[in-house]
Amino acid sequence: MKVAGTQYRTIWMDDTTGVVSMINQNALPFEFVIYHAPSYRETCMAIVTMITRGAGAIGAAAGFAMAQAFLDLEKMDTNSQIQLDFLNHAREEIEATRPTARNLFYATKRVYNAGLRSVAKALAEAQFLANENIADAKNIGENGSSLIKNGSRILTHCNAGWLGFVDYGSALAPLYIAKEQGKEFFVYVDETRPRNQGARLTAWELQNEGIPHKIVPDNAGAHLMSRGLVDMVIVGADRVAANGDTANKIGTFEKAIVAKEFGIPFYVAVPFSTIDFSLSNGSQIPIEDRSEEEVLTYTGPDKKGVLRTIRMASPGSHALNPAFDVTPARFITGFITEKGIFSSEEIIRYKK
Amino acid sequence: MKVAGTQYRTIWMDDTTGVVSMINQNALPFEFVIYHAPSYRETCMAIVTMITRGAGAIGAAAGFAMAQAFLDLEKMDTNSQIQLDFLNHAREEIEATRPTARNLFYATKRVYNAGLRSVAKALAEAQFLANENIADAKNIGENGSSLIKNGSRILTHCNAGWLGFVDYGSALAPLYIAKEQGKEFFVYVDETRPRNQGARLTAWELQNEGIPHKIVPDNAGAHLMSRGLVDMVIVGADRVAANGDTANKIGTFEKAIVAKEFGIPFYVAVPFSTIDFSLSNGSQIPIEDRSEEEVLTYTGPDKKGVLRTIRMASPGSHALNPAFDVTPARFITGFITEKGIFSSEEIIRYKK
Repeated sequence: MKVAGTQYRTIWMDDTTGVVSMINQNALPFEFVIYHAPSYRETCMAIVTMITRGAGAIGAAAGFAMAQAFLDLEKMDTNSQIQLDFLNHAREEIEATRPTARNLFYATKRVYNAGLRSVAKALAEAQFLANENIADAKNIGENGSSLIKNGSRILTHCNAGWLGFVDYGSALAPLYIAKEQGKEFFVYVDETRPRNQGARLTAWELQNEGIPHKIVPDNAGAHLMSRGLVDMVIVGADRVAANGDTANKIGTFEKAIVAKEFGIPFYVAVPFSTIDFSLSNGSQIPIEDRSEEEVLTYTGPDKKGVLRTIRMASPGSHALNPAFDVTPARFITGFITEKGIFSSEEIIRYKK
Repeated sequence: MKVAGTQYRTIWMDDTTGVVSMINQNALPFEFVIYHAPSYRETCMAIVTMITRGAGAIGAAAGFAMAQAFLDLEKMDTNSQIQLDFLNHAREEIEATRPTARNLFYATKRVYNAGLRSVAKALAEAQFLANENIADAKNIGENGSSLIKNGSRILTHCNAGWLGFVDYGSALAPLYIAKEQGKEFFVYVDETRPRNQGARLTAWELQNEGIPHKIVPDNAGAHLMSRGLVDMVIVGADRVAANGDTANKIGTFEKAIVAKEFGIPFYVAVPFSTIDFSLSNGSQIPIEDRSEEEVLTYTGPDKKGVLRTIRMASPGSHALNPAFDVTPARFITGFITEKGIFSSEEIIRYKK
């Protein structure tokens, strides 16, 4: 996608230097800054601190980080057992950054296995995964765009846009393709507390792309749906179990229950790489608990543009901050994937 | 209730000076400041800007404001037609401050009618309404406390505590009485975007009263309920129609739908003065749209305690800010009132 006329990916790696570069999503939308991670440890920290975030971007970052670990190894003069220990430790570190994200494990595994043959193969595999991520996202967009009609009013939660992938996104990809097709539609952007990825990132993407939208408090979902103002909900996913149960940003499950109450189609846009066929259902997906500070404080620019961190809540009170929830498959109308739009029954059958 | 050992009401009027004083709820919980409104216009502005807020407190404020208008009249040397015009205009102004709140209309009508006989009667009626508000809230607390068991985990949305009334509150009154009865329980406090009345005011109240609680993002409701962590939801109301449809803070309707999905009791705590028997159902309740700035910006203290207003969302994007939603009666387990706990069928019968 383009930012002020320049083509960008969300994250990329220079094979020669081994530096992983990424759009700093903590600075957006107030500043556009590229963050550079010279080794796998910095890339890990960038995932933990959410400098890069979103199922697809995390997957690409993890693949790059694993390749960086192989590059680090080249500089060491050690025996093969110590090398293997180093690699296994690096892999564990990468996989521990965001425990809910499926693409993390998918990417580290593939790059790890390739790297056991040669460092060049690790790099090639990491780049292949990033390119595959773009191709998948574009195909999701093309398949999902058929659902979007002229005049459609779509609600989305969190950011499953191009910032959450290497490009295009999952939930927002169908909107970008529909826009290219000349369709006119409107997007309700859930602000997505506590980190406001909707208000910050999805709104920023849609504005860049010239798609009409308004930010709404997460609380407004039932109100809007009860008044017939929403035709469809599309969200992304961090991990989908083999039966279609879907882990995604906290609040997704509420939105799915409410959409079902009003008979509004609820779609999950997701590449197959996010489906974890090793899990029979969603109860096995680990849910990341994040720092209460994300709920109790917020950082944004004051009127002069100076970034300030302020307290949102009563001093002395504490908060819970589960980052994800699991929406059971029965609430999901369909999965928009790179291979087509499927029901959860079809996803189950695909496994067999 | 007590603040740092001193007994306070949320709002009160000095009959001699005609000054209405109130705890400034926009400054809470970061500063404890009393705001003084010398005439009805300042009291109106205090309602509009939410210096005072919450169904019960708004009702008391409106009653006081109407009485202040009668006091203003005493100072004027005009004929009776001009006097009546002034009063009617003042009444309209007061009633236009927060269109969704039922108690506004209830209070202005009663004080207006009393004032037509004498200014003293207007003042007396306004004070009577404030005292009645406290008595009702205490009775709601006593009736509702029977629902709270040792170990109960209660979720509440917005602030229907003593700050939302003259004292005790509606949704929180049962908790305060249960606490006096020596019961131990836990409260999940919805932060209640966009104005965070939960994170700011409810958390502050519960902390003052020593009741264990945690703030949760509004998005966490379905997650907590699906994991069996919530035994009951209690909320307040801004207006209840004759059939039990309930207007309350935006997000209440979502929470009610989700609670029903998991078979969790959902109670509305409300005095009869909030029930509008003139409306057959909730579709007739007007919903206040507030400024988008409440969604896009937030004001709170930085680490040095300096209040800062920061941007929460992507610059250039706009927001919707419906302040209330209407929960249909079928989602409500019962109404905790000063006269007992009733189903919506019993509320309907009460009208007849």
